Amino acid sequence: MAKDADAVTTVLGRIPLLEPAPEVDGGLFPAKAFAGEVVPFEITAFREGHDLIGVDLVLLDPAGQQTSHRLAKLGPERPDRWGVLALLDAPGEWLFRFQAWADEWATWRAVADKKIPAGVDIAVTFQEGAILAERAAKDTRRPKSERRHLEDVRAALLNEATAPEARLAAASEPRLTQIMTERPLVDLQTLSVTRRVQVERARAGVGSWYEFFPRSIGAKKRPDGSWQSGTFRTAALRLPEVAAMGFDVVYLPPIHPIGRAFRKGPNNALVAGENDPGSPWAIGSPEGGHDAIHPDLGTVEDFQFFLGKAELSGLEVALDLALQASPDHPWVQSHPEWFTTLPDGTIAYAENPPKKYQDIYPLNFDNDYDGLRHEVRRIVEHWIGLGIKIFRVDNPHTKPLHFWEWLIHDVNAQHPEVVFLAEAFSRPAVMQTLAKAGFQQSYSYFTWRNTKSELEEFLTTMSRDWAAHYRANLFVNTPDILTEYLQFGGRPAFKIRAAIAATAGPVWGVYSGFELYESVARPGAEEYIDNEKYEYRPRDFARALASGDSLAPYLTMLNQARDAHPALRQLRNLTLHRADDDAVLVYSKHLPARFARSGKADTVIVVANVDPHSVRETVVHLDVEALGLKPGIEFEVRDLVTGQRWQWSARNYVRLDAFYEPVHILHVKEPS
Amino acid sequence: MAKDADAVTTVLGRIPLLEPAPEVDGGLFPAKAFAGEVVPFEITAFREGHDLIGVDLVLLDPAGQQTSHRLAKLGPERPDRWGVLALLDAPGEWLFRFQAWADEWATWRAVADKKIPAGVDIAVTFQEGAILAERAAKDTRRPKSERRHLEDVRAALLNEATAPEARLAAASEPRLTQIMTERPLVDLQTLSVTRRVQVERARAGVGSWYEFFPRSIGAKKRPDGSWQSGTFRTAALRLPEVAAMGFDVVYLPPIHPIGRAFRKGPNNALVAGENDPGSPWAIGSPEGGHDAIHPDLGTVEDFQFFLGKAELSGLEVALDLALQASPDHPWVQSHPEWFTTLPDGTIAYAENPPKKYQDIYPLNFDNDYDGLRHEVRRIVEHWIGLGIKIFRVDNPHTKPLHFWEWLIHDVNAQHPEVVFLAEAFSRPAVMQTLAKAGFQQSYSYFTWRNTKSELEEFLTTMSRDWAAHYRANLFVNTPDILTEYLQFGGRPAFKIRAAIAATAGPVWGVYSGFELYESVARPGAEEYIDNEKYEYRPRDFARALASGDSLAPYLTMLNQARDAHPALRQLRNLTLHRADDDAVLVYSKHLPARFARSGKADTVIVVANVDPHSVRETVVHLDVEALGLKPGIEFEVRDLVTGQRWQWSARNYVRLDAFYEPVHILHVKEPS
Repeated sequence: MAKDADAVTTVLGRIPLLEPAPEVDGGLFPAKAFAGEVVPFEITAFREGHDLIGVDLVLLDPAGQQTSHRLAKLGPERPDRWGVLALLDAPGEWLFRFQAWADEWATWRAVADKKIPAGVDIAVTFQEGAILAERAAKDTRRPKSERRHLEDVRAALLNEATAPEARLAAASEPRLTQIMTERPLVDLQTLSVTRRVQVERARAGVGSWYEFFPRSIGAKKRPDGSWQSGTFRTAALRLPEVAAMGFDVVYLPPIHPIGRAFRKGPNNALVAGENDPGSPWAIGSPEGGHDAIHPDLGTVEDFQFFLGKAELSGLEVALDLALQASPDHPWVQSHPEWFTTLPDGTIAYAENPPKKYQDIYPLNFDNDYDGLRHEVRRIVEHWIGLGIKIFRVDNPHTKPLHFWEWLIHDVNAQHPEVVFLAEAFSRPAVMQTLAKAGFQQSYSYFTWRNTKSELEEFLTTMSRDWAAHYRANLFVNTPDILTEYLQFGGRPAFKIRAAIAATAGPVWGVYSGFELYESVARPGAEEYIDNEKYEYRPRDFARALASGDSLAPYLTMLNQARDAHPALRQLRNLTLHRADDDAVLVYSKHLPARFARSGKADTVIVVANVDPHSVRETVVHLDVEALGLKPGIEFEVRDLVTGQRWQWSARNYVRLDAFYEPVHILHVKEPS
Repeated sequence: MAKDADAVTTVLGRIPLLEPAPEVDGGLFPAKAFAGEVVPFEITAFREGHDLIGVDLVLLDPAGQQTSHRLAKLGPERPDRWGVLALLDAPGEWLFRFQAWADEWATWRAVADKKIPAGVDIAVTFQEGAILAERAAKDTRRPKSERRHLEDVRAALLNEATAPEARLAAASEPRLTQIMTERPLVDLQTLSVTRRVQVERARAGVGSWYEFFPRSIGAKKRPDGSWQSGTFRTAALRLPEVAAMGFDVVYLPPIHPIGRAFRKGPNNALVAGENDPGSPWAIGSPEGGHDAIHPDLGTVEDFQFFLGKAELSGLEVALDLALQASPDHPWVQSHPEWFTTLPDGTIAYAENPPKKYQDIYPLNFDNDYDGLRHEVRRIVEHWIGLGIKIFRVDNPHTKPLHFWEWLIHDVNAQHPEVVFLAEAFSRPAVMQTLAKAGFQQSYSYFTWRNTKSELEEFLTTMSRDWAAHYRANLFVNTPDILTEYLQFGGRPAFKIRAAIAATAGPVWGVYSGFELYESVARPGAEEYIDNEKYEYRPRDFARALASGDSLAPYLTMLNQARDAHPALRQLRNLTLHRADDDAVLVYSKHLPARFARSGKADTVIVVANVDPHSVRETVVHLDVEALGLKPGIEFEVRDLVTGQRWQWSARNYVRLDAFYEPVHILHVKEPS
């Protein structure tokens, strides 16, 4: 036989511990969470034969503090899978692993509970129990009173003067069970691999976004047909109104000088008129490039004034990072190597052959990767220096993915608070890999998931499969996206989409004009007519509000609900429930009491009629355990939309009139 | 900005390459294959934007020989997933990784094919193509004729005297395409991680197993009611008959001395009679333990005689490794620490509380792990020394899993040809982890998958999800398993189960008596009445054959089909097809011509009526591309069961009379 037998090292420990979660690509990338997030940790663990085990999660927070969390079996449908929820409250890198151990006391209890009533092995079974109790009693790390109690148990187990049933009862009494649960006898302790969770600041995962074009706010058409642009000073007047609607983040399209060459006119016309401002995404002119501010918007000082006003209103400002250039961008002269030069000496336009976009030069990262990436890094640092901590990245999927991984990690190494949002609409692998590369948030196909079955699939994927690496920012519209659902769904469609976006996930977004029910598309496109990308679009928000034609009060209600209900600010706590009607979507968000600052569980049930043209009556079947309630219980729910109250149970009649209120947002009152 | 910017290392390369397959637990365990197996290798690979890429698999065989295999995209339902089949022909550790590269020529072709017909950028587009052709032509590693051809292409692309269409045609001609495919222009080359495939000898994954109790063969009841046991000498007479049925492996239940203490009698009776031989799994008596031979079976020399006869018949012999002891086992005296001693000083019996199995002492691996594991290692080495290369392991899930990982790797380090089969019927995680720990084969729940939908799910899981780590040996019965399907399905049930087991996977097994249609169970159990585990069961195979009451000719036909058709000796090449009838199961096994020794593709279609009580008429809808055929084609199939021939296409009528022949096994004749 082998002399060097122990040269074989095993992957498995004494107790197998496999497939830890959260985990991204087998640990290749760290899992993500945001500060304040309640994360399900899971592991597959089992022992040979029938003996019982216990499993703990060992968490190491960024300050080096270690905590231990006991796992429970996840139920008969997932045999050998164990789980526990844990709150990750501080940003930074957390480490976790699992430890499993033979639970000799639980094993003995299970055997004794079968043998004693059957009259089998009475004496020796109690002797075995007594030996375990004695071992626990001898553990000097236990409190004295506990050790005395364990001695008493030992004596009771060995007391042949009492009936076996009484001796078994002594082994089952609550204090002993508590002792053996809290400080179990640990044998065959086995450790799993260690995995990382990168915890980002809360805003990386939680927030209400509002997008607007600063040049439109306060823009005025002069009598001669020319325009006076809105500026950072006029746009700042909008900030308190945005804050009053409850938004947290204001996202601005690019604020840089706009090129003149092949500038696009209204409705993407190939030729712009003299007074057309051009698309903010055609970045760069003689006035400067990505580190400059469009003179029409003001100066750096005006921008800082705007940032200051935002801060006063409790708003963060997110800037756009669109890595492309107008032919007028200074880089074209200073760094032609950052573009693609054709054999005829010209620079290649952006194109989707045979179509060409002559207002845009795409960047080429392969001629001078180091030069270009450090220039981008410099630009990002420039805006960070002015106080920007969030970047919405335009079309990241058209740039090399390892560039983003480098950029985000390099920025976060110095500025861990900086958040990047990926605006990629592409194939699943591309979008998922951008998120794995480090993007803290991502756009998603949410806007095109409108039926009940589409939404059920999307929300399940978002809150489970993606949660460790990909966070969808649920924008209801963007300057590029006006879905058919909004075009043709009427005002109820706007409520439905906003209510789901604001409550299903912890981060959602609205592009200005949504609250005015803007719904007219350029014919044949899922895009706004007279798109703000190419022209000034001043809006009269106040008049709409006064005439009752504004959704702003509804959006305000949604953001207030998010503020009041911590369950709505979590990602992974979504449960789908069943409704008999195929247009009535039901989900709940539940935060157990132990994770709530108030000390009380927070539970919200959303019931949405996703058919904006109809009245639906149906029965909702709730999984009440997912609400943290006991089966069979009745409880009060209050609709955060209307203030109405109902007495609910596992089975409830609902009537949702899309033309009145298409969505119930029901807060569950904890039964006393 | 960061001075030490390049301190950030990225997981992603220039072209992302993620989720390589085959892979087990993110590379924690090596993937498995068997020598001669055709394995699908897959990777997710894509580039930013719209430029095209190519991907190669780089395989390093155990001798250090490197080969390269071009991957293809796996189709629109799996965007960005690439795959290629590769034959792993030698046992040992193979390494693989993927390399991706920007395919500038394919990118240019795709652009030119759009721009030239549209009349856009004619001159510069051909200049770009010419530059690429010139670059290829300058590559001195290319053959001279090829370089000349590339020069000609360059000239043709630049020849403004010809029409653009003609110049584009020059870029599309077959020889150029072949050159640019076989030796592409490679840019931005990126390598994936390296992964391992442990390739075992063919028998680890391919084989027909036959199980029998040697003591039954030639056993004779004496007039006084006592028995004369069969011996290795009498059992050897059965070997040529087993070989004639086409089996490869003979598996023997334990051949060791059997304990007397609490020996079980017929039908698991608690008390055995004087003449009852006892269960071979109650191992150990004063005559010896796991390294000894039961005196009734003969001596070591008799065993070697048996092995010699098996070898002459082309059969391998598999022994049972059942790590447990009768109370009479020598270990009980010499190593009581290998068992569990109770507080009363007795050794613990096997039990399922409150039930006890007093004929068995289970081993305890935690008192003296090193002592016990080296004793097991010694025993395994003992049998290897006598010529055994296959062990069927009894109940491995009741022993620590890391023990098996150690044992198998330690044995295989010295004896890579040794194969272990896990007889574990347990929860999925336990069975899967035993396979990951190293078991080359596993029993499975195949015997209880009898309906069409159950079988479709099982066969898909087996041939795809499990294939890299868990190989199911499809036993149709065992001494422990006589399913209700066989009890009540009549003779057709035996044909159906054998046909599916023999053709769906590359390794299957039969326990002696199956060919005699033995189907009577102990009442209320899925187990044979008068189980051979507890008594002698001599059988008259010859008489059954003579009277037409034997399934042996059918089993022979099945094994001959397996010998003749290499597609049936593969695991991962199974495709399900659709039949309108919910009892008609259809699958095919296809081996492309390039992997067949004959140089011709091998394709077998199995159509099984899994309802043994019925006649079914239905339409079979074939995915003809999965058969390696062109859509719309007609082809001849020959039924290996009856020799009948039909002309088939994508849609075929079938009639399967369970009482005549319930299963078609159709060989596809390649259309010329």
